[in-house]
Amino acid sequence: MPVITGVGRTDYTRKSGRSILELASEAALSALADAGLTPEDVGGIVTFHDNDTVHPYEVASALGTGPLAWSQSIVGGGSEMCAAIGAAADVVASGRTDHVIIYRALNGASGKRMGSFGASAVDDYRQFMAPYGYASPVQVAAMAAQRHMATYGTTREQLGAIAVTQRENALLNPRAFMKDKPLTLDAYLASRPISEPLHLLDCCLENDGAVAIIVSREPTGTQPAVTISSWAYGAGPHSLVPYEKYPDITAMFPIYLRDELYGRAGIGAADIDVACIYDAFTYSALSQLEDFGFCEKGEGGPFVASGAIARDGQVALNPGGGLLSEGYIHGMNNVAEAVDQLRGITGERQVVDAEIALVSGYSFTRGSAMILTKG
Amino acid sequence: MPVITGVGRTDYTRKSGRSILELASEAALSALADAGLTPEDVGGIVTFHDNDTVHPYEVASALGTGPLAWSQSIVGGGSEMCAAIGAAADVVASGRTDHVIIYRALNGASGKRMGSFGASAVDDYRQFMAPYGYASPVQVAAMAAQRHMATYGTTREQLGAIAVTQRENALLNPRAFMKDKPLTLDAYLASRPISEPLHLLDCCLENDGAVAIIVSREPTGTQPAVTISSWAYGAGPHSLVPYEKYPDITAMFPIYLRDELYGRAGIGAADIDVACIYDAFTYSALSQLEDFGFCEKGEGGPFVASGAIARDGQVALNPGGGLLSEGYIHGMNNVAEAVDQLRGITGERQVVDAEIALVSGYSFTRGSAMILTKG
Repeated sequence: MPVITGVGRTDYTRKSGRSILELASEAALSALADAGLTPEDVGGIVTFHDNDTVHPYEVASALGTGPLAWSQSIVGGGSEMCAAIGAAADVVASGRTDHVIIYRALNGASGKRMGSFGASAVDDYRQFMAPYGYASPVQVAAMAAQRHMATYGTTREQLGAIAVTQRENALLNPRAFMKDKPLTLDAYLASRPISEPLHLLDCCLENDGAVAIIVSREPTGTQPAVTISSWAYGAGPHSLVPYEKYPDITAMFPIYLRDELYGRAGIGAADIDVACIYDAFTYSALSQLEDFGFCEKGEGGPFVASGAIARDGQVALNPGGGLLSEGYIHGMNNVAEAVDQLRGITGERQVVDAEIALVSGYSFTRGSAMILTKG
Repeated sequence: MPVITGVGRTDYTRKSGRSILELASEAALSALADAGLTPEDVGGIVTFHDNDTVHPYEVASALGTGPLAWSQSIVGGGSEMCAAIGAAADVVASGRTDHVIIYRALNGASGKRMGSFGASAVDDYRQFMAPYGYASPVQVAAMAAQRHMATYGTTREQLGAIAVTQRENALLNPRAFMKDKPLTLDAYLASRPISEPLHLLDCCLENDGAVAIIVSREPTGTQPAVTISSWAYGAGPHSLVPYEKYPDITAMFPIYLRDELYGRAGIGAADIDVACIYDAFTYSALSQLEDFGFCEKGEGGPFVASGAIARDGQVALNPGGGLLSEGYIHGMNNVAEAVDQLRGITGERQVVDAEIALVSGYSFTRGSAMILTKG
């Protein structure tokens, strides 16, 4: 089965002062070195993005890869992440090439801001939302969180348990953007409102930086093997905001891909040690925990407040700090953390006996996920 | 093996007066009807584009598909076409879903013009070309054509044989934009220069319109089966203009994927009856004919002038008229023609006993291709 053989990262900053091409190249070279490979060994390259990146060919050309047997430049956001990695896994499994680079590089703080109010393009669905002041990701998430609170009694204190738990993890992560900033529940509750019920500390960071991984057909022998045991993609019909036909705004994409994902890996939610799930907002993590089956629907609030998401709890949620407290590299830093946890090299924040990790990426009602396994 | 079960097209015009979403939806519904399917049967949707389209989710939402188990929105041009279709083939083969829509919709004449001088984006390699007046696709192709002429003695009359042959095909195609415009070699030679040695009639059309196909795991029984026997993707290292490190500007992408493509299908160039290869320019077709192995390298000029590319010749080149004379839907109309030829439903322009077709898409030195087989 395909394996992740290398991981590379740049620093996560607010102003890189460097081009996206430079960031991508540094992360890719670092990942190749981690895998014990050179650019010439690479026959595939892929990225996903929000129309804010250089084409993979530019990175391949800068690196000096071998001839390419596969490449993709995928538009669409976090939802595409695990599917892009999964496609690379399928490509190496099919024998088209031995090693593929997957990277995400962005100047997400100093350049194009993903969290800003969505610009309305011709033909874009957002033209119908913008006149109502409803077009930023946080507004969409807030609407769903509001509904979740109304239906299930979820509280801000419960959402805060996610922010606080992940910040505690980040304090043990030298790479985390928030590594020096402890967070109390009171400070969380006092942070300024962005789109009710979501406040500043419910929202992920915005950063400059890059992460790259190498997907290979076989282990290269330089690092402990991490296997891609399964991947899946899922979206409901009519899964576009304003969701006028979507059945339940609190139902996230995992309900569409969960059976496929777990079935192919031969596991269930109870087998998962580490959940590096896409935490664009605290609420995003809460609703995914429910819809991936870690607790019953509607029980996400009590679940996260119970300590179940701590490193020594039922499932360790984003043990590196996640997008909320480590950095926002469009989810790819969560992939890197999952690999490091399964390699057992995360020091003080290591989840004991971590053997199976769930990783996800999402664009609200649509997303993709994968199961990574140690060995 | 995966099959193409449906084909749908809009009219090819210069001013559709309609949104890209409308065009895509019409073509997709037409393809579904052709396959005997309804939108609810669909579990995947993919497009490729030049940042000039709506997201596949908008089309899925407009159509009312079933839940989606796969979707991709791929940036990159014609090079991505057959790889996108191939990825869909792999997805249905792997059991993730039964039917996938692949579409390309554009207002390529009335909206964004692909043939125009490339705008320089931050980080984009074209920033280094634009100051020299070198950034449009026709200029890149012209540079290579000039080299081919200097090295191999290729002539404009030989390039003209491609334009004239494909126009003769278009006169028999009621769908062709040029169906009423016969073309002589003299008229071809007299057309105005665009970028020497390429003149107006060496260049493909620019059109508004859409084409969609359905890729399915099994035939649906409504149409003769057309099997996707293989696909491959290929690019040289350093395959970006200005190609300062590229070994030979006359060497096109087929040299990187040919062995994989033919090997997986168990065929050779001599077995191919119909070549629907990406004819952005006459020269593009000539150089691909060489690099796909229909003739020796450098012999493309005499080969096309010999009549070998006629419908009753060694290999029928773009029997529907191609991008030069049928229309420019970013290559997808060539896919549709290949399917129709293998179904045997193209009337007066039918290639007798057409059983194996080659289809390609390209962005000069990088591209993808597939082998389609009758039955």
